[in-house]
Amino acid sequence: MNKIVLMKAEIISIGDELLIGQVVNTNASWMAEELNKAGINVVQISSVSDEGKHIKASLREAVQRADIILMTGGLGPTKDDITKKVLMEYFGSKMIFHQETFEHIKRLFKARNYYPVTDINRMQAEIPDNCIPLPNRVGTAVGMWFEQGNKIFVSMPGVPFEMKTLMLEQVIPKIQKQFNSGHIYHKTIMTTGIGESMLAEKIDGWVENLPENIKLAYLPQPGIVRLRLSAAGKDENALKELVNKQCRLLHDYVPKAIFGFDDIALEEIIGKLLSKLGKSISSAESCTGGYIAHLITSIAGSSNYFAGSIVSYTNEVKVNQLLVSKEDIEKYGAVSQQVVEQMAIGVKDLLKTDYALATSGIAGPDGGTEEKPVGTVWIAVASPEGVKSKRFQFGEHRGRNIRRSALMAMNMLRMELIKNPKIIGQPVHNC
Amino acid sequence: MNKIVLMKAEIISIGDELLIGQVVNTNASWMAEELNKAGINVVQISSVSDEGKHIKASLREAVQRADIILMTGGLGPTKDDITKKVLMEYFGSKMIFHQETFEHIKRLFKARNYYPVTDINRMQAEIPDNCIPLPNRVGTAVGMWFEQGNKIFVSMPGVPFEMKTLMLEQVIPKIQKQFNSGHIYHKTIMTTGIGESMLAEKIDGWVENLPENIKLAYLPQPGIVRLRLSAAGKDENALKELVNKQCRLLHDYVPKAIFGFDDIALEEIIGKLLSKLGKSISSAESCTGGYIAHLITSIAGSSNYFAGSIVSYTNEVKVNQLLVSKEDIEKYGAVSQQVVEQMAIGVKDLLKTDYALATSGIAGPDGGTEEKPVGTVWIAVASPEGVKSKRFQFGEHRGRNIRRSALMAMNMLRMELIKNPKIIGQPVHNC
Repeated sequence: MNKIVLMKAEIISIGDELLIGQVVNTNASWMAEELNKAGINVVQISSVSDEGKHIKASLREAVQRADIILMTGGLGPTKDDITKKVLMEYFGSKMIFHQETFEHIKRLFKARNYYPVTDINRMQAEIPDNCIPLPNRVGTAVGMWFEQGNKIFVSMPGVPFEMKTLMLEQVIPKIQKQFNSGHIYHKTIMTTGIGESMLAEKIDGWVENLPENIKLAYLPQPGIVRLRLSAAGKDENALKELVNKQCRLLHDYVPKAIFGFDDIALEEIIGKLLSKLGKSISSAESCTGGYIAHLITSIAGSSNYFAGSIVSYTNEVKVNQLLVSKEDIEKYGAVSQQVVEQMAIGVKDLLKTDYALATSGIAGPDGGTEEKPVGTVWIAVASPEGVKSKRFQFGEHRGRNIRRSALMAMNMLRMELIKNPKIIGQPVHNC
Repeated sequence: MNKIVLMKAEIISIGDELLIGQVVNTNASWMAEELNKAGINVVQISSVSDEGKHIKASLREAVQRADIILMTGGLGPTKDDITKKVLMEYFGSKMIFHQETFEHIKRLFKARNYYPVTDINRMQAEIPDNCIPLPNRVGTAVGMWFEQGNKIFVSMPGVPFEMKTLMLEQVIPKIQKQFNSGHIYHKTIMTTGIGESMLAEKIDGWVENLPENIKLAYLPQPGIVRLRLSAAGKDENALKELVNKQCRLLHDYVPKAIFGFDDIALEEIIGKLLSKLGKSISSAESCTGGYIAHLITSIAGSSNYFAGSIVSYTNEVKVNQLLVSKEDIEKYGAVSQQVVEQMAIGVKDLLKTDYALATSGIAGPDGGTEEKPVGTVWIAVASPEGVKSKRFQFGEHRGRNIRRSALMAMNMLRMELIKNPKIIGQPVHNC
């Protein structure tokens, strides 16, 4: 594989709202991801104020580092938005009236039944004479492409939808055409049910033998560890093949831990599996308090396989609705194998589903004992073959305990579902 | 009121994960918000790579602009993390072993039953000789405070929980003490059940008469509009009094819309009200799919007032568990006043609670009709006095429809609860 020299880009996000913490800079992370996919390295992301002096300083700094400087924000019709004026000063260019852009603005206003075109909108059709205008199909603020020496400067509106359209339809293709740059291919492997250090140990042999042009990154979250593979090269298809081959090799090291790819959620995988098998699910939730039901129903179309949930926060609800034995609650406690298994069987029978999940635990911060400290959680999965349960010891943080319990419950369900002959060898579990 | 000169801060977020778009920089926006609250202006936010050369360049740029440079990231025990080494090079300082920090790491490991302390952990106790260590109560990476000339540099771990603890408990108080800077007093007023433009109209008379040194910002979220008042001055107590007086005045304009202050969640207010009244609650959820139960149980101590929820995603569960009339479902549809009211009454009787909430709607993206488009939601609240219900028309986005339905349901409950003589005139509803 040839060594590739990647183009370097810097993102400058303009707007006071970013500096007072009112707006999280999701534009920049989206742009960084797309640029990376296109084989362009992002070397810095800067959020700067709406002040001309500050914007110009950041441009001067950026050209020291990057080949391509991408700016967003400051192109709207209001008086706060000064990017255009600043760029004219920076390049020493003159303002010209761009008839084509003005016609576009007028067409847009007509199509949307807006009020008549004003002087302010007329001003939006004025552009610096040294720029190539990038027509904005979905808004009135035109994108601007400048070249100076061997550096490229692009100015785009900060409205996410407009910026994304310009980036995907014009800016990235134009950069790739101009530079014939290399590619970076990324694939993220989603794993669960195994901690980061244990995972690292198990896949050590695979990591050792990774080709040199593939980089591996561990990205842990509570209950989930993502593995990101990044391969750099000239031929996009060859890169994909190379990465997919490594995915298949990895699969043999941890066949059960991998549940999907590229940031798919576990609840979506559960939904796909249940749909494929034509099976239904319900839940009986104590410590997760409805969170499992919420995750499952966050997926569109979940009404096809999810019947419902009995959130049994009190012992009375466990006994009266789920038919858990009152004696067993007294004898073993609500957080016990006996109770969680009866909850799972109870809801499965009550809501007449093929599978059922149940949780009972101490989410915290109070309610722990020496024998069952905060973070103790029993989880059960009932299936046509019977009921299985397991005790977990999570941490002290209530929110994280709820989240990890729900993920673990869904993973226990997944383990049951993938045993089905219809699933074994299916693409969702292989590369 | 005297004019205040604000300190200037720059945030440098270190980590390749930010530059490939894998992680959104929520740390920086949180820090910017907290710094602003403390009367410190943020002039730039930069995300830079894990490379020493690059980190040093950004430090050199930042000192041109800012009095205080706050860095996050690059302090963990793995080899990627190089901030400490870079800072030593930048300041020309030497590494020393800090016994106190090492004892702290050992204590932390013992408390968490971790594997034995390794050489890597020992290295975490090494710090540059010119820094003041900021002990990290919740993690192993120590914070570091440097002073050079009249500039301050602070390095913190990138783990959000650790960074936030250090910022709130040590960094911000230390900055404020050292500079005796002016105060900005912020108070956020939480409103719900009324849209931004309607709210603006209703409180117009109050806005007109706000004192000059109080700034007002509208911060809308789906289902909630926050109003942030910011007052700048020398005397913190005088500012508090001034702002609180305005809160009391505002209350008369929108007495029902204000549910609390300073980012308190509606589910926490519901919990406080129910606890105060000694009343219990349950829910019957169709379109919200367990999300109401999840929000209520996210609050520690909710087992004192929350009995449980019947998530009835299918009509069978509505009929069999909640005793909704099958004929009414056929006649009026599952998304109807008749059905949602029967759901609320059904769960209230079944789980024997004082109050109950019910939702039935079309969350989307599919399932809409001309008569009941996506976003149509019926919500009912059953109380000892009977049942009330209301139809809402939300938008097209599934996740937002679920969230807005849950918030609106909790707000309908709040409206019932605040009628109680024990609540009227209580601090939670006044300033």
